[in-house]
Amino acid sequence: MTRTLALDDLIAALPEGMVVTDPDICGGYRQDRALDPDAAIPLAVVRAESTDHVVAAVRWCAANRVAIVPRGAGTGLSGGSGGVNGAITISTERMRTIEIDPVMRVAVVQPGLLNAEVKAAAAQHGLWYPPDPSSFEICSIGGNAATNAGGLCCVKYGVTTDYVLGMQVVLADGRAVRLGGPRLKDSAGLSLTKLFVGSEGTLGIITEVTLRLLPPQPAASTVVGSFASVHDATEAVLAITDRIRPAMLEFMDSVAINAVEDHLKMGLDRSAGAMLVAQSDSPGAAAAEEIAVITAAFEANNATEVFATDDVAEGEAFTVARRMAIPAVEKLGSLLLEDVGVPLPTLPDLVDGIAAIAAGREVMISVIAHAGDGNTHPLIVFDPDDTDQAARAQLAFGEVMDLAIGLGGTITGEHGVGRLKKPWLPDQVGADVMDISRRIKDALDPDHLMNPGTMF
Amino acid sequence: MTRTLALDDLIAALPEGMVVTDPDICGGYRQDRALDPDAAIPLAVVRAESTDHVVAAVRWCAANRVAIVPRGAGTGLSGGSGGVNGAITISTERMRTIEIDPVMRVAVVQPGLLNAEVKAAAAQHGLWYPPDPSSFEICSIGGNAATNAGGLCCVKYGVTTDYVLGMQVVLADGRAVRLGGPRLKDSAGLSLTKLFVGSEGTLGIITEVTLRLLPPQPAASTVVGSFASVHDATEAVLAITDRIRPAMLEFMDSVAINAVEDHLKMGLDRSAGAMLVAQSDSPGAAAAEEIAVITAAFEANNATEVFATDDVAEGEAFTVARRMAIPAVEKLGSLLLEDVGVPLPTLPDLVDGIAAIAAGREVMISVIAHAGDGNTHPLIVFDPDDTDQAARAQLAFGEVMDLAIGLGGTITGEHGVGRLKKPWLPDQVGADVMDISRRIKDALDPDHLMNPGTMF
Repeated sequence: MTRTLALDDLIAALPEGMVVTDPDICGGYRQDRALDPDAAIPLAVVRAESTDHVVAAVRWCAANRVAIVPRGAGTGLSGGSGGVNGAITISTERMRTIEIDPVMRVAVVQPGLLNAEVKAAAAQHGLWYPPDPSSFEICSIGGNAATNAGGLCCVKYGVTTDYVLGMQVVLADGRAVRLGGPRLKDSAGLSLTKLFVGSEGTLGIITEVTLRLLPPQPAASTVVGSFASVHDATEAVLAITDRIRPAMLEFMDSVAINAVEDHLKMGLDRSAGAMLVAQSDSPGAAAAEEIAVITAAFEANNATEVFATDDVAEGEAFTVARRMAIPAVEKLGSLLLEDVGVPLPTLPDLVDGIAAIAAGREVMISVIAHAGDGNTHPLIVFDPDDTDQAARAQLAFGEVMDLAIGLGGTITGEHGVGRLKKPWLPDQVGADVMDISRRIKDALDPDHLMNPGTMF
Repeated sequence: MTRTLALDDLIAALPEGMVVTDPDICGGYRQDRALDPDAAIPLAVVRAESTDHVVAAVRWCAANRVAIVPRGAGTGLSGGSGGVNGAITISTERMRTIEIDPVMRVAVVQPGLLNAEVKAAAAQHGLWYPPDPSSFEICSIGGNAATNAGGLCCVKYGVTTDYVLGMQVVLADGRAVRLGGPRLKDSAGLSLTKLFVGSEGTLGIITEVTLRLLPPQPAASTVVGSFASVHDATEAVLAITDRIRPAMLEFMDSVAINAVEDHLKMGLDRSAGAMLVAQSDSPGAAAAEEIAVITAAFEANNATEVFATDDVAEGEAFTVARRMAIPAVEKLGSLLLEDVGVPLPTLPDLVDGIAAIAAGREVMISVIAHAGDGNTHPLIVFDPDDTDQAARAQLAFGEVMDLAIGLGGTITGEHGVGRLKKPWLPDQVGADVMDISRRIKDALDPDHLMNPGTMF
């Protein structure tokens, strides 16, 4: 009763219709793309259209000690934007403005704009926003900043944090604060901007980001290699990264190749054990040299087929195929989606270890990877109606993270910890780092209202 | 008496001779390169040789509530490593190991190694560590990380934080903690590594950094332009950065040109009002295109002389001239060294405003700049024996920072806040950011033992 009365205050504090309590609509905000079965229907959803709306909603939550789940496009893959029982979900999906300053080469963007829309707006000014999660057409820039998202070109061009110069963030007490700004160099004070990137909504809600833009990417040349074994492919990855820094170096195993070919029917080699897609975008003669290095590395590691093209559209078709891998494999069953990264020399060990886990738990694990930076996405496929198999898949999910940690790697290269990987975070970073992190959390969100259950 | 007895415990806890209390030697640790007249002789100096030594020293300080000044090579330009009355200075100058992993392309470096030594060690493996403060031959990598140091190539290659993948840090309570690691992508937990970069020793002492290395920089082509007026030169900067991203774009005014020419006698145009030194290191035909853009921008903005060369040694001579500017101008009197940065389109306004401040306060202000990223070093020259002029120089020092803040800029692009710029930090970042920063400081260093007076 008290709760209902208080919700009336929230509804009254915001424009009509902005606070949604309809259970059907709220149900649409229960899960994100991680499909966490433990996610709950939010108490209410605030579809904010401005920083002021977020401020008003957070102030109400702070006054009433109601927890807050920040949410962008809802494409998170770690369950970090799924609903929490009794919590308000604050969605930034309707905050979609962008302003580009072509002289300063920055974009000031509200969090609900999609990554692809940022890229498109930059391109209209002859500029480029590099980070490119595979989900770039459906994921929002706010979520990208909150998870420090990566993508395919990151092996050469870095991840989201490398492009965030500043932001506006609404803190747990409802204050809207500006951090950083449109300056390439700024050593004034603690690096708060970088602290908030990747904080997964646990310290505040990002309501605006200032992004650094680059001159347009040069046209890329592409080399595709098929390999009889996964081992040959991972050895080829090491042979390439030892010599050059490709603009892209992607890996798909046999399951992923076949799942994608089922959809695209583009003539991928269904008999291959693994496939690599590499690109060079270096200008002039440098591209040809890099393509030669890649081709030689493929051939030296027993590639069964090597195809090289300078045609951008032809190369993009293979990038599309790689991006299609997760949705394509998803058709084979329910997925537990990993995001483990390891130091590159141990990539073959990781891939071998995953195969052993799959055999031991009798589940299918398809591996796709941003191989050039050691970031892999083992996809654990299971039948949700087979309780025993589902339980074995869960065990494998943890074992893959344990394996990565044992190899000196990370449980998440680009998706974030969210709720699904939280139990493994202390194993990776250790008790002292957890203690420092908790101290910062306590300092900025003493009542732990911001995105409870994520990371902490 | 208690203090003396306690110091005995510190001396006993460390190898013989590591704790220095000799006033003459301690006097050498009073100031850093900022020559802060308010710096004090440390109570003692610990010249640590390992993380364990730092841990032992910090534990003693924590137990005895003695403040700590972390210090690298002592080349800081904001007074952040100068001595504090009653505090222990912990110097990392003797922690100088480096291990390079050429496959992972990372260097694991102790903080006392000089920037130039990191570059040289990387080069032995055919690799490159880009950040290049002008003082790279005398500044330490630990200080670089603590201040988020920049340099000349940062306009294209980014600053120190962009290369720090992980670190070991000793917290205020004496715990040694590892943050991050040798992984290009890692979204696991809060971005603590990036928080500690640029924290200027206020949160802990960096005892090891893991640095990302790049393939070697391609040979650079250089274009030098002389201009009758500063205004023409700054307009040329905008014309270049609007089109391309040079590998270097440096500015020197007439005072700096003449001071450098006094030393190097390399034939710089003493009559010029300003000089720009630009480089392109893009491979193949791209370099020629960029050099053409730069040359055209120089000519379109009334350059009185344009000199282009593909000869690396010839180009390096001009880079050396630019790096020589601060020590050369320093011969003209005492210096107050600014580090203000502004959004690029306002660079001409900044330069004009600085001239007005110099006229108003009747002091000489020479301007040199990493013009391509808007980061300038106005050098306020004064006679220390002229009390009135010294006071006017101090007023001008603050006015230049006020000017930069008014233009949406920063009081420090790459040197850090230290003790000298602390009063201006709240004006730039605002009360809320100071509050967040203080909360983090309180959370990690509740007794405020770490580098008191710096930043906070």
